[in-house]
Amino acid sequence: MNDTYAHRIGETSVVVRGPDGRPLADRVVTVQQRRHAFSFGNIGFDFVSLVGGPGDEASAGVFGGAAGLGLETLAAEFTHLFNTATLPFYWGGYEPVRGRTDRQRLEATARWLVGRGVTVKGHPLVWHTVQPSWLLGLPAGEVERLLRARVRELVSGFAGLIGTWDAINEAVIMPVFANGDNAITPLARSKGRIAMVRLAFEEARAADPGATLLINDFDLSSAYECLIEGVLEAGVRIDAIGLQTHMHQGYRGEEYMGRMLDRFARYGLPLHLTESTLVSGHLMPSEIEDLNDYRIPSWPSTEEGEARQADEIVRHYRSLVAHPAVAAINYWGITDNGSWLGAPVGLLRSDGSRKPSYEALESLIKGEWWLPPTEMRTDASGAIRVRGFHGEYEVDGMPFTIGASGAPVSSGTGAPSVR
Amino acid sequence: MNDTYAHRIGETSVVVRGPDGRPLADRVVTVQQRRHAFSFGNIGFDFVSLVGGPGDEASAGVFGGAAGLGLETLAAEFTHLFNTATLPFYWGGYEPVRGRTDRQRLEATARWLVGRGVTVKGHPLVWHTVQPSWLLGLPAGEVERLLRARVRELVSGFAGLIGTWDAINEAVIMPVFANGDNAITPLARSKGRIAMVRLAFEEARAADPGATLLINDFDLSSAYECLIEGVLEAGVRIDAIGLQTHMHQGYRGEEYMGRMLDRFARYGLPLHLTESTLVSGHLMPSEIEDLNDYRIPSWPSTEEGEARQADEIVRHYRSLVAHPAVAAINYWGITDNGSWLGAPVGLLRSDGSRKPSYEALESLIKGEWWLPPTEMRTDASGAIRVRGFHGEYEVDGMPFTIGASGAPVSSGTGAPSVR
Repeated sequence: MNDTYAHRIGETSVVVRGPDGRPLADRVVTVQQRRHAFSFGNIGFDFVSLVGGPGDEASAGVFGGAAGLGLETLAAEFTHLFNTATLPFYWGGYEPVRGRTDRQRLEATARWLVGRGVTVKGHPLVWHTVQPSWLLGLPAGEVERLLRARVRELVSGFAGLIGTWDAINEAVIMPVFANGDNAITPLARSKGRIAMVRLAFEEARAADPGATLLINDFDLSSAYECLIEGVLEAGVRIDAIGLQTHMHQGYRGEEYMGRMLDRFARYGLPLHLTESTLVSGHLMPSEIEDLNDYRIPSWPSTEEGEARQADEIVRHYRSLVAHPAVAAINYWGITDNGSWLGAPVGLLRSDGSRKPSYEALESLIKGEWWLPPTEMRTDASGAIRVRGFHGEYEVDGMPFTIGASGAPVSSGTGAPSVR
Repeated sequence: MNDTYAHRIGETSVVVRGPDGRPLADRVVTVQQRRHAFSFGNIGFDFVSLVGGPGDEASAGVFGGAAGLGLETLAAEFTHLFNTATLPFYWGGYEPVRGRTDRQRLEATARWLVGRGVTVKGHPLVWHTVQPSWLLGLPAGEVERLLRARVRELVSGFAGLIGTWDAINEAVIMPVFANGDNAITPLARSKGRIAMVRLAFEEARAADPGATLLINDFDLSSAYECLIEGVLEAGVRIDAIGLQTHMHQGYRGEEYMGRMLDRFARYGLPLHLTESTLVSGHLMPSEIEDLNDYRIPSWPSTEEGEARQADEIVRHYRSLVAHPAVAAINYWGITDNGSWLGAPVGLLRSDGSRKPSYEALESLIKGEWWLPPTEMRTDASGAIRVRGFHGEYEVDGMPFTIGASGAPVSSGTGAPSVR
């Protein structure tokens, strides 16, 4: 815990009190961290079938599915590192047949995760890929009406369970996307990008005013900066900027990431690394432009690849957590089963065993950046001083928080005591 | 004149009248085109020294200078093909010492060109390159005040002589430009791109409400689309979209150009190909990202290169003139003397002789797309029907116009006669 992470660390004074409300002076107590304030997330796609059942034919196979791993095993491995799960709401998977949605399974999954203390995020409300075939060919006005209705229904329907949404995905390429016919691209082309962003945010905001709404893109060039500037100038309120970093073609390095984060940090909004992946096998050739175009029968995880992935995931997370503007990192793969493009991006192998990357990430999230159960002695006024990463803590089972403000708190019964 | 250029061609009926105002029936008359409505332009940088004198040390060497060619020779070669000249108003060249501007020479040059029927355009009002050294280090507020004053003074000072301006140049890269310290990049970084565009257009518009104001960029990616969408959404009125196509690394082909033009045409604004070049020597290596980084002692024009340039300039101009949204093409080089980067991009060699590209362009602008002196016979009512590229024409020395509307006109004395 050096200066690199100073912006993540707080120190707080906690008065420990007995059942009668009196401070317990000169007493040995056990302090430990319960949860990071920082959002360490991963996709929870694999949980949908395990919790909600197999679903019908039409919804199957849309990203994820953790064959071979039992629910409790997967959940234990997931929640040991991650406090946030992203669930899939791709229109094509969610509503494969018009009017027949996968809501039941997703609601059950979200509820199950929330019950285990996991924050759930939805992805994505508006996108041009993974589209239902029945939408194609409908008039633009009808597509817009259906899209607006979908956004409203999802966000209001899941309010209370899901409070964070990728409101619009990949708006930079949306109007000029040429890698698959869909009904959204022509709409974006005729309305313009900013109008599409406004549509997504307006509908979602109206449906749940308290939700955290993201714009999200893989295009991290000046194009995305220009789009964000246009959207902000147009008065659309964005809660966080989503930055994808699928690195199937190789880790881009700390210097690239630092420069990139600085460029987007200047809008004063939290940055969410929404989709981050590092492969533990061979790299995708760099000449592939749309990653979706790379389809191979098998993409194995290798010993060498796993060592590289472990090394890079540490470098990557260190550089992101060190940047003050970053508020969330969402890794894009828990197991290799059913991963996007069949790439070995998971932290667990297909058989459920941990890759070195899992343990490497554990050494940060639950190691260097974490306060394990620790004995401390209260002073004469019953207080201890605790220093650690922002988050939720407990002392002898009583909860307290270390926040960015470093405000003093009190544990146990009675009113908080400010010293 | 086939369908490819149908949107450029009009047909008009002209009643030819005698000195007494009566229609001249059944008379042989000579019709000819005087000028294209389409803006065929080139840089007029070379004229500044020839018309205005050598200038002082500080202003010298900022793009252009046509050593060896006399003024009248150059003017004859220029005006034979081009009806529009772009003059340089780079801040670093125009005001190399604070308060000491090159106004006198530029005003003399503009006046001289206008006197010869050439439309003059100014380039650029706001840019981050070719900056005066005295500006660097001033506080941002002072830089903004000086920039606003410069825009106002140039546009109002030249109103009547110069009615078209590149109001802002390369705004996409402006806030993240890293290839040279300057005072504009930090300003753009703190204000944002859209605010910079607004600044340029607001000041220029206020200074000359009738001026045609362009946004101009070399970045033709989605970034520029996003910027334009943001600017339009923010309510800034743009009169034309400027698209640079410096092709030192090779002609990009009709297909690329067509797709690119289609992308920018969807904003419903005229497209100006503001800076187009094709080299008549070896090509710049494709790995150079900022063309300014390629500096070689000598870049000769070669026979093979000249043949290629001639072929490509015809293909390029044909594809641009064929696109209905294009309203102007400005070539970026008349002679190879003092050309940007020392590249052999001119249509005239350094010794003033014509390259094949000059003659190739002549075969279009003054050949296939031009009506040379042509004898016609008036009908019983004194009328002739003339079909040709939009522009200015004359019949027996009396002017008439073929416009986009194809409205009938009358030549000679007396009121126009509508038939």
